[in-house]
Amino acid sequence: MSQELRAVDWTGSGLALIDQTLLPQRNKTVAVHDVDTLVDAIQRLVVRGAPAIGAAGAYGVAIALIEGERKGWTEAEVRAAVARVREARPTAVNLMVCVDRVMTRFDEGLDAVLEEAAAVQREDVAANRAMGSFGADWLIQKVGVDRPLRLLTHCNTGALATAGWGTALGVIRELHARGLVEVVYADETRPLLQGSRLTAWELVQEGIPHYVQADGAAAWHHPARRGRRGHRRRGPHRRQRRHREQGGHGRRGPRLRGRRHPVPGGGPDHHGRPLDEDRRQHPHRTPRRGGGVGVVGSAYGSRRIEGHNPAFDITPGRLVTGLVTEQGVLEISAGELPGDRLK
Amino acid sequence: MSQELRAVDWTGSGLALIDQTLLPQRNKTVAVHDVDTLVDAIQRLVVRGAPAIGAAGAYGVAIALIEGERKGWTEAEVRAAVARVREARPTAVNLMVCVDRVMTRFDEGLDAVLEEAAAVQREDVAANRAMGSFGADWLIQKVGVDRPLRLLTHCNTGALATAGWGTALGVIRELHARGLVEVVYADETRPLLQGSRLTAWELVQEGIPHYVQADGAAAWHHPARRGRRGHRRRGPHRRQRRHREQGGHGRRGPRLRGRRHPVPGGGPDHHGRPLDEDRRQHPHRTPRRGGGVGVVGSAYGSRRIEGHNPAFDITPGRLVTGLVTEQGVLEISAGELPGDRLK
Repeated sequence: MSQELRAVDWTGSGLALIDQTLLPQRNKTVAVHDVDTLVDAIQRLVVRGAPAIGAAGAYGVAIALIEGERKGWTEAEVRAAVARVREARPTAVNLMVCVDRVMTRFDEGLDAVLEEAAAVQREDVAANRAMGSFGADWLIQKVGVDRPLRLLTHCNTGALATAGWGTALGVIRELHARGLVEVVYADETRPLLQGSRLTAWELVQEGIPHYVQADGAAAWHHPARRGRRGHRRRGPHRRQRRHREQGGHGRRGPRLRGRRHPVPGGGPDHHGRPLDEDRRQHPHRTPRRGGGVGVVGSAYGSRRIEGHNPAFDITPGRLVTGLVTEQGVLEISAGELPGDRLK
Repeated sequence: MSQELRAVDWTGSGLALIDQTLLPQRNKTVAVHDVDTLVDAIQRLVVRGAPAIGAAGAYGVAIALIEGERKGWTEAEVRAAVARVREARPTAVNLMVCVDRVMTRFDEGLDAVLEEAAAVQREDVAANRAMGSFGADWLIQKVGVDRPLRLLTHCNTGALATAGWGTALGVIRELHARGLVEVVYADETRPLLQGSRLTAWELVQEGIPHYVQADGAAAWHHPARRGRRGHRRRGPHRRQRRHREQGGHGRRGPRLRGRRHPVPGGGPDHHGRPLDEDRRQHPHRTPRRGGGVGVVGSAYGSRRIEGHNPAFDITPGRLVTGLVTEQGVLEISAGELPGDRLK
């Protein structure tokens, strides 16, 4: 199943995007044949996750070319349309990088553009596979595994967030493929619930055993709690002495993740700016007044509630054990810095 | 308003309980004239918060007596009914303590029982007022306040959770009464949303400015983030240099709270047992299978999701600056322990 799940898929004439705003209740695909629809899909979070947005943007150049052909646009008009795609999500760096890469072949025409977009997508899947493999090897080496692991994950870093397979969730998929996953604890990930909506859905598809938990429950898994007393109380798991987790402690978020996939709790610091997945529904410091509420309070809260939504925070370096990349794992806590090994 | 808000009120012939399961959408009162209704109200979380449950239990003795009179019960039957009230929430210690206290006057008859229950309620409000005052004084002294504070609170520790006024939220009320609250950040408090449902509702009643935020956003307020760079990005608040908070960092929950009011994130450790506010909807380690989901995933998640719900955790002592009680504030981080000062 996992190899087949494509959040972003080129159909030959346009893009098919899984509408992630409807999951898990409905698994519906949005067909994209024009730039307006693509920009809207990026902005409404139909497609989300920086790598997935990057792949969609790469194919967006082709969509602009095809739409321009159909509507008789000038080259300047096509380029303006591409620029609109490129700017659709200012915080998704992948989007700009991927559009710019494909645009280097703009002058060669549609076939070349499509070839480059396909390469972007293919390379992202390959990078995710490599990350999954490096990450799984490293975790096994770190914990000296002798039985299946319990793993914790935050947000959605799976196939839905990428061109396929996933970054941090790709490590979990890889471990599962090796028979080394006992259970995954998926933080629900407030306020947008990418964990309970998307990660849990992917885990169901994969048949990977999992629990969804409130983000705050992540602290419960901290190694400091691994004493005998805690274990005796853990019911069905009481004989399972080894307790490891990929990821975070409280809201500081996953410590082990693909370097190209910033997640809430672990991503770059963008406080004070209305950003990324939080942007559309959670204007930071610009709470809606008089009738509207942020998603933080909407499902249950008073209509007069205003939300405070710092979209991302910084994970302190001392909490990061390793940084899993497609080129290998950097042991940050051991003093290894990206400059030491990565090109 | 705040002095008037009574989650638990004796009407002369029975109890009037604000139905906290309906807030904030509906402010409806449940009239309690028999033990079955009271036990149900305690178990369904119509009344919640250990002090509020304690007050309801105190009056429960009177309800058992009145119902027994009406239905011609024997004394043994009345005592059995009282025992059912006493056991309605095994984890709310206040319930047993308050029922036992009122039962010391059982032999004196209804008037004496009602007098004792009223004393329980009155004394709880007085204790909360004292906590509020001690806590406010101490906070002001700690931070050297020269302008209104920004405060963070978790769960609901207000008038709804007590016989009146509130414990940790009582400190905030007191500071507000002194004109020293700029804004309150109320953690929504997953999974049951006592923060966005109840605390925000109380703050609206009081006219105290507030934001609701995802529990994970609490880390954003950590003093370590109070550097110049963080401040420059905080938009409308950028000129507000002093940034203090009552309460927590991430899910570790409020550090400053009434000692008699354990809150998720800061309460006693009861992992592995189905407990208190989490009990009814979140059987710990007994996820519902085949059609049901825990509240953690219910609002948005797949129907096949299972929830992991460790109801409470322990706040490490090193994270606790002070423990506000009705007898004064203990400075835990400075090495002062409850035995040092409290009787």
